[in-house]
Amino acid sequence: MDSEMKSFFETAPPLKERDIISEKLKQFIQNDDTNRRRVVCVTSGGTTVPLEQRCVRYIDNFSSGYRGAASTEYFVKAGYAVIFLYRRGTCQPYSRSLPDNAFLECFEFTHESNIQVRETYSEAVKTAIRDHHAAVERGVLLKLPFTTIFEYLQILQMIAVTTRSLGPHAMFYLAAAVSDFYVPWESMVEHKIQSASGPLDIRLVQVPKMLSVLRKKWAPMAFFISFKLETDIKILLEKADMARKKYEMHAVVANELLTRKEEVVVVTENEKISVHRDKSQAGSDVENPLIELLVGRHSAYIKDSNT
Amino acid sequence: MDSEMKSFFETAPPLKERDIISEKLKQFIQNDDTNRRRVVCVTSGGTTVPLEQRCVRYIDNFSSGYRGAASTEYFVKAGYAVIFLYRRGTCQPYSRSLPDNAFLECFEFTHESNIQVRETYSEAVKTAIRDHHAAVERGVLLKLPFTTIFEYLQILQMIAVTTRSLGPHAMFYLAAAVSDFYVPWESMVEHKIQSASGPLDIRLVQVPKMLSVLRKKWAPMAFFISFKLETDIKILLEKADMARKKYEMHAVVANELLTRKEEVVVVTENEKISVHRDKSQAGSDVENPLIELLVGRHSAYIKDSNT
Repeated sequence: MDSEMKSFFETAPPLKERDIISEKLKQFIQNDDTNRRRVVCVTSGGTTVPLEQRCVRYIDNFSSGYRGAASTEYFVKAGYAVIFLYRRGTCQPYSRSLPDNAFLECFEFTHESNIQVRETYSEAVKTAIRDHHAAVERGVLLKLPFTTIFEYLQILQMIAVTTRSLGPHAMFYLAAAVSDFYVPWESMVEHKIQSASGPLDIRLVQVPKMLSVLRKKWAPMAFFISFKLETDIKILLEKADMARKKYEMHAVVANELLTRKEEVVVVTENEKISVHRDKSQAGSDVENPLIELLVGRHSAYIKDSNT
Repeated sequence: MDSEMKSFFETAPPLKERDIISEKLKQFIQNDDTNRRRVVCVTSGGTTVPLEQRCVRYIDNFSSGYRGAASTEYFVKAGYAVIFLYRRGTCQPYSRSLPDNAFLECFEFTHESNIQVRETYSEAVKTAIRDHHAAVERGVLLKLPFTTIFEYLQILQMIAVTTRSLGPHAMFYLAAAVSDFYVPWESMVEHKIQSASGPLDIRLVQVPKMLSVLRKKWAPMAFFISFKLETDIKILLEKADMARKKYEMHAVVANELLTRKEEVVVVTENEKISVHRDKSQAGSDVENPLIELLVGRHSAYIKDSNT
């Protein structure tokens, strides 16, 4: 591990519940003792960067978590066990078709003082609850929440180390919007920044590029997919390919902020594959064909690794 | 309105759904044509400050929205109609005793393919859904969501202007964590900030102090409560009192980050009243005695205004 990375981890606030998370991970992996089950770690939502040690203000990265949640459903359908590493409060698998504040919106009270699902949401609610519980009970969905960049990177490291025994059967699908700038914990002010007078200047330093370490040291055999989001389409594909080379990703999914629900481009060593949602189907999404494509590539990768 | 404020509103991105919000507000106020019903605007959760026009990164203010949600319940109980101006995704009234991801956690599927509430959550779920729907149906709860500081201030202005006809019967209970620094929309970069090289320096300017304008121009007759949160207990009371004087608040609720669920201090012109939760009662909260105190003060204020 390079020194920048080492210092990031050494100065980060210690992860709460480290032992509990570690135990959950071990059990989840051991659930299948053939070591042939495929396991994917899906990261989802944005990480935050605290600006104060006792955190009142922080910098956040926009991400609803829709892509991660949807992808998780398709991975489960394709036979994967999914470790869903998600930002607290973001979109959950099997809840995508529900309204905001689903809990209060979807149910009503009957005269007999029972709770029933409102007619309009009947199908969506049944499917959500049934599929979600089925996945958890079958041991194919483990959900681990994070908020800060510090939590995210520490849990990701634990996942990488724990899934190492799976060799090429492990996959990382890194859809989370990870902060690229942060305030080092030690240089952070302890108390709330005072707004007494004048403008506020903040100096942020780059988060060490953990993708290299993750790929090469922590999980060198796994299959890696990362994401590149830009708002400027002109630089998107070039930056996606640069990231692929630099971090030795097996594929980078390039997406532009405004069209990301309609189309993405999968950039591999030899190809640029445009993936669209099926517009002839109401309620279709781009994650369905995307996961189908990636599962196929992962199969080929496993086959290659075994020969 | 001073020039700083004027320029803030003129350069802010226009509020989506302005007409719909305006209509909802009018109807909510007209629900009671005696004009003697008390109406409180409870603001809740943190506002965000975008760092880019096509927003990927933003600065956020930490606030779960628990206090605003709890206070809303007690105001309804005390006979108020509540306009709940809340940050999307934060805690909702009548949902406080539910677990995270309540929707997926509280229900299970029966063999007859029906959905039922899990035994453990049975009471909490029934109460939540019953009380929430009752409040909405009785026309005493209007929920309006915001995300950015721009949305927050624009909706707050609309609420102030619409409730002006209520005179002293209107109350503002400003529990939201409002950004005090922002990047002016016009000086914001359009595209995602590039992380190519070196540290990132951000210059933030102060959000114009809208509290003065709200209090003195938009709703000069209403009863005003604001909040002061600090992490440093030593400066807390002094800052709360300074804010009270500066903005002519009727009371400022001072709270310290670590103890805010146990105790707050209500700072008025002549008093500093410490309010504690009742520790002899399991599940008690500090909002219950706090709202009781404030409702009493509001009654006295209305009486004074009428004589």
